[in-house]
Amino acid sequence: MTRVGLQISYVGKNYHGWQIQNGTQQHFPTIQGTLCQAIEKALGQKVDLIGSGRTDQGVSAIGQIAHMDIDTTYPVEKLCYLINAYLPQDIRVLRSFLVDDEFHARYSAKLKTYQYSVYFSHIIIPYYEQFAEQIKRQPNLNSMQQASKYFLQEHDFTSFCAASTEVENKVRTITDITITQTGQLIQFSITGNGFLYHMVRIMVGTLLEVGYGKRKPEDIAILLQKKDRTLAGKTMPAKGLLLVNVEYETEKM
Amino acid sequence: MTRVGLQISYVGKNYHGWQIQNGTQQHFPTIQGTLCQAIEKALGQKVDLIGSGRTDQGVSAIGQIAHMDIDTTYPVEKLCYLINAYLPQDIRVLRSFLVDDEFHARYSAKLKTYQYSVYFSHIIIPYYEQFAEQIKRQPNLNSMQQASKYFLQEHDFTSFCAASTEVENKVRTITDITITQTGQLIQFSITGNGFLYHMVRIMVGTLLEVGYGKRKPEDIAILLQKKDRTLAGKTMPAKGLLLVNVEYETEKM
Repeated sequence: MTRVGLQISYVGKNYHGWQIQNGTQQHFPTIQGTLCQAIEKALGQKVDLIGSGRTDQGVSAIGQIAHMDIDTTYPVEKLCYLINAYLPQDIRVLRSFLVDDEFHARYSAKLKTYQYSVYFSHIIIPYYEQFAEQIKRQPNLNSMQQASKYFLQEHDFTSFCAASTEVENKVRTITDITITQTGQLIQFSITGNGFLYHMVRIMVGTLLEVGYGKRKPEDIAILLQKKDRTLAGKTMPAKGLLLVNVEYETEKM
Repeated sequence: MTRVGLQISYVGKNYHGWQIQNGTQQHFPTIQGTLCQAIEKALGQKVDLIGSGRTDQGVSAIGQIAHMDIDTTYPVEKLCYLINAYLPQDIRVLRSFLVDDEFHARYSAKLKTYQYSVYFSHIIIPYYEQFAEQIKRQPNLNSMQQASKYFLQEHDFTSFCAASTEVENKVRTITDITITQTGQLIQFSITGNGFLYHMVRIMVGTLLEVGYGKRKPEDIAILLQKKDRTLAGKTMPAKGLLLVNVEYETEKM
């Protein structure tokens, strides 16, 4: 068996998230389910495809990474073309590459980068609506940038994940966070060693409340200390979220 | 009669460009035709809607400006909501505003800004495919930036417009041009006092040839002097093009 890594881009709009829903692919297609069907048609093998993490319904990706074990004599770096021939246009395997047997798309991941896009306008702007979430008023960029610094380094993110999250250890490290504005479009780029369920969407929801003056930048530090989801801001919708990149130790890829 | 200005955003994908095609709206819907139908339904009046310029089939806009003369006692700044009620989701009037009788969406325009988006990848990236054009290889950003400086200020753009262009005076002034890269996405932002037919798309096509080393940055100066369309680069496809903004003398708006 050969362990193969895949880099995958998709537009989340038409899918019920990454994760296969048992026996419901026909009525509730998922990214993982659609990929597994295409791989089976392309290679004549059923595979377990393990992603770097689940993305929710409506979330898109440029740099999702997954791995699978297959029997093949075909050059691994050409597999992407074979698989793409059986995929719908809104999912594409951008790269296929040989990895070590110890490589695991989820457990070997060192850093992930997400981008969240919003545009401010009281009327829907169709062009931005393709990939960004509408907010009604302009937030203060400077105060959001100040607030974002409090997320940097290692913290317990209990206040910033869905209350239903069952993972025990909620300590994560944010290594970089930038917020940029171009016209009415504001983009949050967040890099960390791992993200809890809804974490990026709650972080952005809370930063926007700082941008609207409902919270002070330094309130982020208090929210992190309190470890209480009910105190942080609202969970932003899925559409604005994009998985940009997953980083691994290069020697394993 | 009251002269009213409209700021309009649209996604060009489903339309045969801005300009009404006589009697063919049903089978070949246009942006202008769709707006005129919505305005007639909303206000009970047929209007002539004059745009700042035509956009081609597939070109999108955030800041298209148009004007019309109507009989109304309704507050002008609320007209956008009325009209939007009759528009499909991919066209929206973002603002409606009172203008002077001398205001003309096309002739009063002082500056326009277009953005052209490309992404480099030998496989289609579905996320970028929503709004950007695929190019197969990575161009050299630095040499494109150098080349772009030769477009600044006043030049005859005969080499950079469709050979069929019937306008006599092809002298235009480019006031700003920036090229930025984020990951595999490259965006060209070009501001000028006017643009000839296909001008932005040919400028970008030619800059990319500089980025691929097929031309030198300083060749742009020669191309401008030669006034010969056949010497410049290819016309890039419509999808990557976005009309961002049209600027007027503020006292007229």
